[in-house]
Amino acid sequence: MKIHAWAAKSPKQPLTPFTYEKPLGENDVLIKIKYCTLSKADTFFIDNFWGDMKFPLVPSSDMFGEVMEKGNNVTTINIGDYVGVGYQVYACLKCEYCKQGNEQFCKKQRLIGIHEYGGLAEHIIVNEHFAYKIPPKLQKPEYVSLVCYGLTAYSAITHANLTKNMKIGVIGVGNLGHWAVQILASQGFSVSAFTHTDTKLEQLKQLGVTTFINTLDAKALNANEGMYDFLLVTTYHSYDWSHFIKLLKPEGTLCFVGLPGVNISFPALLLADYARRKITGSYIGSRKDMHDLLNFAQTHDIKAITQVFPVSEVNNVISLRRKNAIPFNAVIQIS
Amino acid sequence: MKIHAWAAKSPKQPLTPFTYEKPLGENDVLIKIKYCTLSKADTFFIDNFWGDMKFPLVPSSDMFGEVMEKGNNVTTINIGDYVGVGYQVYACLKCEYCKQGNEQFCKKQRLIGIHEYGGLAEHIIVNEHFAYKIPPKLQKPEYVSLVCYGLTAYSAITHANLTKNMKIGVIGVGNLGHWAVQILASQGFSVSAFTHTDTKLEQLKQLGVTTFINTLDAKALNANEGMYDFLLVTTYHSYDWSHFIKLLKPEGTLCFVGLPGVNISFPALLLADYARRKITGSYIGSRKDMHDLLNFAQTHDIKAITQVFPVSEVNNVISLRRKNAIPFNAVIQIS
Repeated sequence: MKIHAWAAKSPKQPLTPFTYEKPLGENDVLIKIKYCTLSKADTFFIDNFWGDMKFPLVPSSDMFGEVMEKGNNVTTINIGDYVGVGYQVYACLKCEYCKQGNEQFCKKQRLIGIHEYGGLAEHIIVNEHFAYKIPPKLQKPEYVSLVCYGLTAYSAITHANLTKNMKIGVIGVGNLGHWAVQILASQGFSVSAFTHTDTKLEQLKQLGVTTFINTLDAKALNANEGMYDFLLVTTYHSYDWSHFIKLLKPEGTLCFVGLPGVNISFPALLLADYARRKITGSYIGSRKDMHDLLNFAQTHDIKAITQVFPVSEVNNVISLRRKNAIPFNAVIQIS
Repeated sequence: MKIHAWAAKSPKQPLTPFTYEKPLGENDVLIKIKYCTLSKADTFFIDNFWGDMKFPLVPSSDMFGEVMEKGNNVTTINIGDYVGVGYQVYACLKCEYCKQGNEQFCKKQRLIGIHEYGGLAEHIIVNEHFAYKIPPKLQKPEYVSLVCYGLTAYSAITHANLTKNMKIGVIGVGNLGHWAVQILASQGFSVSAFTHTDTKLEQLKQLGVTTFINTLDAKALNANEGMYDFLLVTTYHSYDWSHFIKLLKPEGTLCFVGLPGVNISFPALLLADYARRKITGSYIGSRKDMHDLLNFAQTHDIKAITQVFPVSEVNNVISLRRKNAIPFNAVIQIS
């Protein structure tokens, strides 16, 4: 079938209409896209920031839409279902990792931007197991970025084995970070936000941030050495990570879900001496994480601070994102 | 009391006799030292490799000896006991970490080379709780480095939560590494050794190494990508750590107990993408770890490959260690 999309034909180019062919497989569903996001990371994808993108590139790894057709073997999704699709659109469901419930580690997985065209399109075809039914309460633009950004924050937080009274910080508080803040606050943690911008502070307080620390203020960072159990890095900025590792208590964890474009670098002794500190990373989440998050979002009424744009505005949105003029979430209405 | 020792008066200087005063506190024991080690790390201490040493510096953070006197409040150690002392010689035993049984995280801890003079001396005075009774079977030069080097390997391995059939590697196989190999092999793991020297291979096979991988052979490293659950870094060499992180499976751990002198550096995406890998570090261990290791060493008959030298040879031993001419453990007989 012919799919009409918007693509960057080569790195850093504006998006223009682009058509590609994809058959509807026996295990696939065809989704008519209603909303997709355009995130800061999409600008990095378009600019080939991490170097592993394929062009033409159709961006957007969160989308909501309606199922229009389904393959003969599809059993879990029906025509007419309102579904969301995130960054991962396929896993084998048979390997060791899939069987553990960690489909995001599957070696045969397919991802948007790397193996597949994304959500900035009239339609998408994906495996039924990566189309998630969206409850009616969440069928709004404010929830579109839940399926990739929300999931990434939720999975990292869930697998950090946090316990009551732990001291938690989020480094960088944009799209990904403001999901993290809300998830942590809903779990009862008081959350410190580490940021170098002060234009978002009021909004972030309302989401649950109790303390702000300026990432460029060496004195403020020093004053917090050895205080934190868990720091979640949601920014793409590069810092001297030693300053943040020093903020951790013994056995504390620094977890990267934002991926700085240059190597992270620090002395190994900051992990070892007096400490047994950990550095880890996480990306997206499992299908179980997604189902849990859909329930969690309904229960706790968390959502992205969202600006909605018509599809005719995509290149303007990308330009705004490059200038950091959209603080949190941008959603494109396609139909 | 006056203690006769051997010290480097300033960085990189030869060791010469040195006398210092220390009172016997109410909770202290005075130990007449029989054996101490001179390790590769001691040459780094003398050279101020990590930059936090105090001079004059009396090296050696593993020693065995006999208790000659004790303070009025000492209850756990008797005069005449044969004891070992490692890198840590004091903790408050009252703080949150001490109460958890993690005395090595105590903020009031005192360490050899940083706060205290070391074991290359006729005597040492330490808190009773950091003098460990050495079972008769272990009162030999081959066990002296157990109290710092053995402990460091043992604690890192114990807290890695290893499970049966995990694939394990040790990067660097000198003093620290050959303890790690023996501990892992005794626990039933088949151990890969990553090394760039081939002079030790026969000895290491006898200790339990089943596979050797040359750290300078990029092809051999590539061929093992995604294969390992746990890699323990026991070397002070600097590598491109990306190569080793790529050897890890999803959720695998790279743990530093050897501390390279230059920053470790790698792309954060190697931790996050498809992976949730971890980088951690560990140093020495708790008092419980030490007691467990003393039992473990007796049960499994593990010991250091050791060369014994008279104290008159200390500067020669340091020179041999600088040239990497002592492959594993060097013990100085003091009395």
